[in-house]
Amino acid sequence: MNIGGTSTAAAPPPWRALLADAMHSNAHLNYSSYFQLATVSANGRPANRTVVFRGFQDGCDKIQINTDSRTSKIEEIRHCPYGEICWYFTESWEQFRINGRIDVVDTSNRDLAKQQQREKSWFTSSLRSRLQYLGPSPRLPVLHEEPSTNHELDPLKGPVDTFCLLVFYPEQVDYLNLKRNERLLFKSSHSCNESVVWQLEKVNP
Amino acid sequence: MNIGGTSTAAAPPPWRALLADAMHSNAHLNYSSYFQLATVSANGRPANRTVVFRGFQDGCDKIQINTDSRTSKIEEIRHCPYGEICWYFTESWEQFRINGRIDVVDTSNRDLAKQQQREKSWFTSSLRSRLQYLGPSPRLPVLHEEPSTNHELDPLKGPVDTFCLLVFYPEQVDYLNLKRNERLLFKSSHSCNESVVWQLEKVNP
Repeated sequence: MNIGGTSTAAAPPPWRALLADAMHSNAHLNYSSYFQLATVSANGRPANRTVVFRGFQDGCDKIQINTDSRTSKIEEIRHCPYGEICWYFTESWEQFRINGRIDVVDTSNRDLAKQQQREKSWFTSSLRSRLQYLGPSPRLPVLHEEPSTNHELDPLKGPVDTFCLLVFYPEQVDYLNLKRNERLLFKSSHSCNESVVWQLEKVNP
Repeated sequence: MNIGGTSTAAAPPPWRALLADAMHSNAHLNYSSYFQLATVSANGRPANRTVVFRGFQDGCDKIQINTDSRTSKIEEIRHCPYGEICWYFTESWEQFRINGRIDVVDTSNRDLAKQQQREKSWFTSSLRSRLQYLGPSPRLPVLHEEPSTNHELDPLKGPVDTFCLLVFYPEQVDYLNLKRNERLLFKSSHSCNESVVWQLEKVNP
């Protein structure tokens, strides 16, 4: 790859191909679909946790993450709707820092298309994953040891209220390849007709 | 381990033993000393990147990270001196979310003890690591392809101006064990005599 200076690229953005390559070359590692999502708490401090990549939304570059609506990240995102994903691929030594806006799609969201995406994400999840949303409220104290409850779930039934879809809109991607000692910066902007335009620049690692 | 309710523990804090175990059981993976550090940018958005664990400071729980003083995280930390480390161990399925304050120790710092720590961290680094601090300014555009310069460095000479030590003071540790489906929350506070007291609570995963 020989990219110098600044250039403009059409959709799909050029970082998608790099990410697809990294996912492919690390696919044998089950944790290669995990990344760290940073948000900002109401007290202004950063928060950071590992989440699972649940694919791109059909035909676009929005990243999907499933989460429990009772986790603190929901309150954090409502307070500051921006996040930065840090996705490090341990086999290929590649890092993607993806900065963007996050949309919370929970049971209260009235947008039909978004609810359909939430439902789709629910049914794409394994039954085991879905069962987690029936557990006790995350981060609340365990007051006394209880035997784990065997929740039952109709596999044909739609998402439970605690199931929440996060939709991440990438606005900037900072790509670092430690093997090649190469760093590329992808920045998005909106053109006159409101379509997203990506610019890329080769920068010092 | 059978920890229920809330209890008070003396130094070293109980999360240190858990972290030591995780580091030990993942030590064969060269990337197990990497974690993601989240900070807050001046524009209020989160930032997140992979950094390398450079050990605890002698006799205490402060986490050391080496960085280049020209990276944007320095400006971010000066603006908001808090961070959250997310350290996920891929072999043992354990996650440590460590929230705390960050101290920047760069060449301008006049605290003699801190400068000695910075110097120690410099000499502990490999020569190859040290050479990185002589490279061009991170994230500035590569205007034209140049052959990589062979910098020379006297191995006995102290840190260059761009070498910066970050000292992370843990205040809260959120530990998640995905194999055991267990989550422990460690919170620090100061006792009457200003010593740090850690409380731990078992919470829902």
